[in-house]
Amino acid sequence: LDSGMFVHVRRMLHQMPPCDVALLLESSPPAGRKVLWQLTDPEQHGEILEELNEDVMEGVLQLMAPETLAAATEGMDTDDIAYVLRSLPDSVYQEVLEQMDGQDRHRVEAALAYPEDTAGSIMNTDTITLRADVSIDVVLRYLRLRGELPEATDALYVVDEDDLLLGDIPLSTLLTVSPNVNVREVMDGNAETIHVSMDENDVAALFERHDWISAPVVDEQGKLLGRITIDDVVDIIRENAEHSMMGMAGMDDDEDTFAPVVKSTQRRTFWLAVNLCAALVAASISNMFESTLEQLATLAILMTIVPSMGGIAGNQTLALVIRGLAVGHIGEGNSRWLIGKEAAIGMLNGIIWATVIALVVTLWKGDWTLGVIIAGAMFINMSLAGLAGVTIPLLMKKFKIDPALAGGMALTTVTDVMGLFSFLGMATLVLA
Amino acid sequence: LDSGMFVHVRRMLHQMPPCDVALLLESSPPAGRKVLWQLTDPEQHGEILEELNEDVMEGVLQLMAPETLAAATEGMDTDDIAYVLRSLPDSVYQEVLEQMDGQDRHRVEAALAYPEDTAGSIMNTDTITLRADVSIDVVLRYLRLRGELPEATDALYVVDEDDLLLGDIPLSTLLTVSPNVNVREVMDGNAETIHVSMDENDVAALFERHDWISAPVVDEQGKLLGRITIDDVVDIIRENAEHSMMGMAGMDDDEDTFAPVVKSTQRRTFWLAVNLCAALVAASISNMFESTLEQLATLAILMTIVPSMGGIAGNQTLALVIRGLAVGHIGEGNSRWLIGKEAAIGMLNGIIWATVIALVVTLWKGDWTLGVIIAGAMFINMSLAGLAGVTIPLLMKKFKIDPALAGGMALTTVTDVMGLFSFLGMATLVLA
Repeated sequence: LDSGMFVHVRRMLHQMPPCDVALLLESSPPAGRKVLWQLTDPEQHGEILEELNEDVMEGVLQLMAPETLAAATEGMDTDDIAYVLRSLPDSVYQEVLEQMDGQDRHRVEAALAYPEDTAGSIMNTDTITLRADVSIDVVLRYLRLRGELPEATDALYVVDEDDLLLGDIPLSTLLTVSPNVNVREVMDGNAETIHVSMDENDVAALFERHDWISAPVVDEQGKLLGRITIDDVVDIIRENAEHSMMGMAGMDDDEDTFAPVVKSTQRRTFWLAVNLCAALVAASISNMFESTLEQLATLAILMTIVPSMGGIAGNQTLALVIRGLAVGHIGEGNSRWLIGKEAAIGMLNGIIWATVIALVVTLWKGDWTLGVIIAGAMFINMSLAGLAGVTIPLLMKKFKIDPALAGGMALTTVTDVMGLFSFLGMATLVLA
Repeated sequence: LDSGMFVHVRRMLHQMPPCDVALLLESSPPAGRKVLWQLTDPEQHGEILEELNEDVMEGVLQLMAPETLAAATEGMDTDDIAYVLRSLPDSVYQEVLEQMDGQDRHRVEAALAYPEDTAGSIMNTDTITLRADVSIDVVLRYLRLRGELPEATDALYVVDEDDLLLGDIPLSTLLTVSPNVNVREVMDGNAETIHVSMDENDVAALFERHDWISAPVVDEQGKLLGRITIDDVVDIIRENAEHSMMGMAGMDDDEDTFAPVVKSTQRRTFWLAVNLCAALVAASISNMFESTLEQLATLAILMTIVPSMGGIAGNQTLALVIRGLAVGHIGEGNSRWLIGKEAAIGMLNGIIWATVIALVVTLWKGDWTLGVIIAGAMFINMSLAGLAGVTIPLLMKKFKIDPALAGGMALTTVTDVMGLFSFLGMATLVLA
């Protein structure tokens, strides 16, 4: 591909489905990305854009003039256009909106008016609505006249003259009931609805739990505003999961794998700065025990073991709790039980690893006092690590701090400080 | 709920949808779980079971006799029955199979014959098939006679007399085309298929990329075997994501948040044992420099900073690479580019943090030699951390070791050892 066979590559790109082109772009270093984008089929630009990860999309958008972008959005779902426009600078986005034709523009502006991360921002407005008092036969004839249905349509919605949602009819029902009955008789009048301001994570949880393919979105009055489809929900589930995983390592989940060096370095700086502070706090703990460390260099050799074990044990608990919070397993009712359980595991772990480390150190250094000191510190730190691993994320949740982002750093600082303090503190007491 | 209002709770449980009952069970400590299970509606047992996480399900299955379980599986999807049966001990599972009626039993045995984690193990066999030469009108009449369609049916499959898949017809097409045309004229003959032995992760990636709701599963000859639906794929996506997140903390993604203390402690032991070995390796590095540490206790105070920064920087890179591998962004073609990029970020980070720490230490300890020593060690360790963060997961992938599980521990060991070695080594050289 590097050898300048542009014509060949262009033909290949034009034949690939847009989702595969998007994957190829995401897998390319920035320089290659520009070349590839120029070779893609302009007809597919819209579909490729909506599949790209935010960071990569921003890069590609810089290569496009507002008119080209407005042309590319034709035929895209409203929510996907809104997603693309949201990442543009204000001036450019106004320009793109001006280039779009009246009706599209109106729909996109409506979509952009809903706050990001709510049901409103991920819904499509291309619903097919029916009246309750027509017969199925009429519906079938209407659909044949209408032609193609919007993507991922698995149900039609029944509304009254004020657009209030009365129920829904799955396509499979339309195909299996007698054509002579009325819509009202076969519709599902208890269809669950999603409120337009619901958080997108709650929407995803509902979809996952109920195995939905699409669901209607309504306002306070129960008026039908649009529908949410499973493909957007799958993206949310994937993003959330990546957020937990990347967040625990201090990374942004939007980060492009092939971002330029300087940009990546800037992004990672904050977390490294926080960690430097945490490491300096731990160092200042050891500093309090300088005279003890001067007395016995072996302490310096052993002093990293207890914080390390506490960090791992605490992080195990932390991961469990972060997942539990994300999935919705942990609430007011059972958090006390969970704290008790993890504290008990911490103590049991403490007993086990205190015994092991006491034996190892006594055999290695031939000094059972050292064994006793490190065992005591291990027990204290492991017990506290279990407790901290569950209380830190729960407290953060209460104060609306994201535990997936800040939990690991806070926890490691606690276990490092407690580990050093208990080990060096006990050593000072025993040696004095 | 604790106060013995069983009748009330039973009524509530019977009115809840099975997925909510499952969430409630998962959110309850083991003791409460047993009581709740006894109060659930036996008619819903099958549907509740299939929604439960593996660990919780195993606990519940122990409360059920084989006959009850066989009865509960009636009406469940084949793949869900197989999922439940797979977690039973061999003897019990034979007994359950014997209790099932002939046809169901045959279908479940066929599903169980496919290896776990392949397309075969998650597919349903309840497809509706059509012949190519009938008219749409005949199809519509057939569907009305048949009544209800299987769940999440969005397309019917067209096969020849040997069950070879010829194409598919979305329900929306059935509703919008003229009833007089033949199936052959409106079917999509290029429908993409899934091979029965494809890995379930690849299946999930295809669904996600193409926004599918269901897809046909075929064997080598192209014979239709069944179909995979989006609800099972969503579970796989969620599980994979949890696997990366929990794995990085050394936890099993099946772990039940409310598992008993002893069981949880056992599960976490392995990872803590591995970490103890890693910590002892790091300690033995410091041990090599015992005489230097005896000379200057300040070294002991500062020696934890460099490994800590290297660990964080390396883990940032690691998380990025693990996600890239999972999403399919990283392959043979671009891994060299990525190694170069992350090595460059590592060196840039090294220059930044070496400068910062040199200033901090010189000001704190009033000794610029110490500043120079720690700056040198910081640069070496940060550069290596970037390189290790990308090469370790790539190598593990090559040797078929799961980087999400073992990557973090391997990386931290490398950064700890290199951090201590470079800092104490340089100190020894300078002080000598």
